Amino acid sequence: MSEPFMFEKPLGMRDVLPNLHSMQRKLGDRVLQEFRLWGYEQVQTPTLEYYETVGKASAISDKQLFKLIDFHGNTLVLRPDMTAPIARLVSSSMKDIPYPLRLSYCSSLYRALQTEGGRPAEFAQVGVELVGDHTASADGEMLLLLNRALIQAGLDHFQVAVGHIGFLNALFLEIFGTVERAELLRRQLYEKNDVGFKEQVKAFGLSSIDEKKLLKLSRLRGNEAILAEAEQLTESAEGKQAVAELRDLWQGLKEGGLTRYMKLDLSLVLHMSYYTGCIFEVYHDRLPRPLGGGGRYDHLLAKFGRPGPATGFGLRLDLLAEAVGKLEVQPKKRCLLYSRERRQEAYRKATALREKGMQVVLQDVAGVDDIDKMSASYEEIVYLIGKTEEGKR
Amino acid sequence: MSEPFMFEKPLGMRDVLPNLHSMQRKLGDRVLQEFRLWGYEQVQTPTLEYYETVGKASAISDKQLFKLIDFHGNTLVLRPDMTAPIARLVSSSMKDIPYPLRLSYCSSLYRALQTEGGRPAEFAQVGVELVGDHTASADGEMLLLLNRALIQAGLDHFQVAVGHIGFLNALFLEIFGTVERAELLRRQLYEKNDVGFKEQVKAFGLSSIDEKKLLKLSRLRGNEAILAEAEQLTESAEGKQAVAELRDLWQGLKEGGLTRYMKLDLSLVLHMSYYTGCIFEVYHDRLPRPLGGGGRYDHLLAKFGRPGPATGFGLRLDLLAEAVGKLEVQPKKRCLLYSRERRQEAYRKATALREKGMQVVLQDVAGVDDIDKMSASYEEIVYLIGKTEEGKR
Repeated sequence: MSEPFMFEKPLGMRDVLPNLHSMQRKLGDRVLQEFRLWGYEQVQTPTLEYYETVGKASAISDKQLFKLIDFHGNTLVLRPDMTAPIARLVSSSMKDIPYPLRLSYCSSLYRALQTEGGRPAEFAQVGVELVGDHTASADGEMLLLLNRALIQAGLDHFQVAVGHIGFLNALFLEIFGTVERAELLRRQLYEKNDVGFKEQVKAFGLSSIDEKKLLKLSRLRGNEAILAEAEQLTESAEGKQAVAELRDLWQGLKEGGLTRYMKLDLSLVLHMSYYTGCIFEVYHDRLPRPLGGGGRYDHLLAKFGRPGPATGFGLRLDLLAEAVGKLEVQPKKRCLLYSRERRQEAYRKATALREKGMQVVLQDVAGVDDIDKMSASYEEIVYLIGKTEEGKR
Repeated sequence: MSEPFMFEKPLGMRDVLPNLHSMQRKLGDRVLQEFRLWGYEQVQTPTLEYYETVGKASAISDKQLFKLIDFHGNTLVLRPDMTAPIARLVSSSMKDIPYPLRLSYCSSLYRALQTEGGRPAEFAQVGVELVGDHTASADGEMLLLLNRALIQAGLDHFQVAVGHIGFLNALFLEIFGTVERAELLRRQLYEKNDVGFKEQVKAFGLSSIDEKKLLKLSRLRGNEAILAEAEQLTESAEGKQAVAELRDLWQGLKEGGLTRYMKLDLSLVLHMSYYTGCIFEVYHDRLPRPLGGGGRYDHLLAKFGRPGPATGFGLRLDLLAEAVGKLEVQPKKRCLLYSRERRQEAYRKATALREKGMQVVLQDVAGVDDIDKMSASYEEIVYLIGKTEEGKR
C-alpha cells in the first residue's frame, strides 16, 4: 500500500463533469416526472444502513459490500440496493400508510470492486417499488411504467426480457429434487452463457427427457406463443401457475398497447436472490450490460415485520445517459466582463437578462489572468470596460 | 453491542418521507436554477474519497469522519464537505479549463456522531465554488448569489453575518505573537459564547490596551460604520488590508442593492480551517444553527497542485426546508380503481389524464385488501368496476 496522489479517486469512483451531469439530471427528471404522474411518491433513505438488517437482506454478495464499523461496534454498509432500504422504510416510518404503496427514488448505490475492471463502484439509480399488491396488474404496471419512462427519457429501440423465477425454480425442482443442485445452471443463465449452460446440462448425466427439457428451456424466448410450450415443459402446479401469471401479465401489456419492445424469456435469471415471481431486464444495443431490471419479491417485506407482496424496478442513470447518447446542445453561455467603475451597470444588465431566464456570467476583468483563454469558454462576451466604451464581439 | 432491530437506522441517519422530500426537492431545484442563471455548472464527486488526500484537506475533525478501509489497505472517508473534493476535481479532471471556474453541486455530506444528539450524520447541501478569482467582486458575487438564491427559495428575514478571518488572525498575531495562542479565543467566538470570550480574554493577563482591543472586537458588529473602528484596532498591514477588502466588498453589495439582510461581524469564526479571507454565515429565526455559510480559501487549491484563489458557500437543504416552513399543498391525488374486465378502459383514461399533466394512480381492485382504508389516501377515486356500472364519489 502506497499513499495515494492528491488527484486520485478510490477504485471505481467517478467525477461527473458538467455536460454529463446536466444530461443525467435531465434524464432523471423526465423519468421521475413520469413516476410522479403514475402516483409514485419519491423518498430518500440513508446512505448507511446496518449490515445485520438491510445489508444482509439486500442479497448483494458480501464481498461487494462497502463495510465500516460505527462507534458502537455495529457494522454498517453503504446501501448496495434500494429495495431492502425501502422495505425497512415501509415497515417502520411508513407502517401506518395502507397498502398498496407506490414509492420512487433517485439514489446512489455502492458495490465494492476488488480489481479495476471499468465498472463503477458508485452509480445513481432511479426506480420504483409497488408494495402490497399481488396482482398481475401490478406486474404489468411495472412494465408499462418502465416502457413509458424510457420513452419519455428519449430512448428508442430498447428491449425488455420478461421471465418468471417461479417457473425456473419449479422446473429445477421437478428435475433435481432441490433448487440448490441447479445453482450451476442458474449461474450460466445469469451470465447468459448458452454454451456453458448446454455443457453443464450434459455434465449432470440426466435422463434424456430431463436433458431435453433443460435444453428446451434456453429456447423459450419470444412472444406469447412460447407460453404454450412452457406449459408443457412443467408438470408441477407451481410451474403451471407461473405460466398462467405470465399469460395474465402479457394480456395486460396488450391492453396497455405496449408489447412492442417486450419479449418473453423463460430462462431469464437476475442476480438479486429475493425475487419470487415475474422478473424482467432492459437492454439497449449501445450498452455492454443491462440498463436496469426488476421484478416481484413477495417475501422480503416479511423480514422487516410488515408482510406483503411487492414488485419494482431500477434503472441506472449513467447507462441511460449512455444509451440515449447526445442530448440537445447546452444553451449559449454569455459573459458580462466589466471593469470596476462599470460594475453597477453590469449588475443591472445581468439581473435583467437572468429575469428573462438567460444564463449570465458576471466577471470582474481584474479577476481574469488570461482573457483570450477565458474567452474560449463563452459563446459571447459583452465588454463593459472603462468609463464610456461599450463593445461586443 | 447488541444486534440492531430490523427497523433501525444507524445513529444520525434519517429517512426522508414523500412530503418533506418533495419540499426539499423543489427548494433545491430553485436554488440550483439560480446557480445556473449565474453561470455555475453542476458537478458531482464520489461519496468516497481517500482519507490521506481529500479527507485531511477537508478540515473536518478526524473523529467526525466516517472511515473505512478498501481492499488495497487505503483508508477512505465518506466526504465530509464538498470544497476539498471540488478542489481535487478542478486540479485533475478539469485542469485544462481556464480560471475563473464556476461550479455548483447538490450532494450529501457525512459527519459521524459519537452520541445521539439530534444532529443528522448525513445531510444534503447545495452550494457553489468560484475558483481562480481573487477580487472583492468574487466575494461580493457569493453574497449576492446567496441572497438571491434564498429569496428564490421563498425565504425571507434571514440574516447574513460577514467577517474576515484575515482581520482576526492579524489582530491575534499583533497581540499574542502567534495565531496558536489565540486558539481558545477562536473557539469561544466559533461557539458564539460572548461571556466565555470575555472570561478567556481576562484570563490571559494581557496589558489593558490589548485587553480593551479584544473586548472591542466582540462589539464590531453592524453596518459599514464599524469598519472605521476596525481599522483603528489593528496596526498591521494585514489587518488594514482585511478592512480594506471588507470595505470593497460592502461597496459591491451596495451596487448590487443587497445590503438589506447583511451585517458585518468582525468576530465571526467558522469551523472550516482553510478559510483565508472574507467569510460569512446565514441565520434564520426558525433555526437553532446556521443555515449555511462560506468564504474565501486561497491556499487549498495549491495542495491539489493547481494553485488559485477561491471562494464559495454551501446551504443545508434540510435546514432550508425547516426555515421556509410549509410549502404549497401537494396536488390532489386521483385513483382509477378498476376491475379486470375494465382494465383497458382504465389504461386509456389514465393515459389521457397523465398527458394533461395529472397525477393518476391506476389500481386493480383485486390488489386492495381494505378499500375503505385505501380510500383515505386519495382525494378522489373513480370506480371502473363491473361490466357497465361507472361511479364516481
